[in-house]
Amino acid sequence: MIATQIGLVAGAVTSCAVIPQVVKAYRSKHVCDISIWQPVILVVGMGLWLLYGLIINDVPLIAANIFSIFCNIFLIAMKIIYREG
Amino acid sequence: MIATQIGLVAGAVTSCAVIPQVVKAYRSKHVCDISIWQPVILVVGMGLWLLYGLIINDVPLIAANIFSIFCNIFLIAMKIIYREG
Repeated sequence: MIATQIGLVAGAVTSCAVIPQVVKAYRSKHVCDISIWQPVILVVGMGLWLLYGLIINDVPLIAANIFSIFCNIFLIAMKIIYREG
Repeated sequence: MIATQIGLVAGAVTSCAVIPQVVKAYRSKHVCDISIWQPVILVVGMGLWLLYGLIINDVPLIAANIFSIFCNIFLIAMKIIYREG
């Protein structure tokens, strides 16, 4: 019981981790020091987590990963758009 | 069975996602555009995943999270050391 709750909190915390990076990149328009591969690999990995969530029909896992995938795609888009910065 | 395998691959992929960022920061010594909060939040979240892994006694989960926590602490250290860059 307590383990499941820790797992849920852990999933929520790690899913939110990309938000400060997205906000910083959006505000500064500077993405030069950011590796594009981190969000790319995260999209692939979280796509697999999403697939896992769909197979085991786990709503929090599905929701958290859709949210994180969206945030990371947004970061990849900024990395491409602000490439010059 | 297939779900567990997808989950394991997903965990391995997301655990490795930070590596390109660590390598880029180490090589360039430039970390200005990186938000320190992403690795900080990831260390907290992965610490909880590690705790979850210890409770359910899942070796791949424990190993993947120890590795990721180490990488993210290294990134936080570089963010502090190369702050001027």
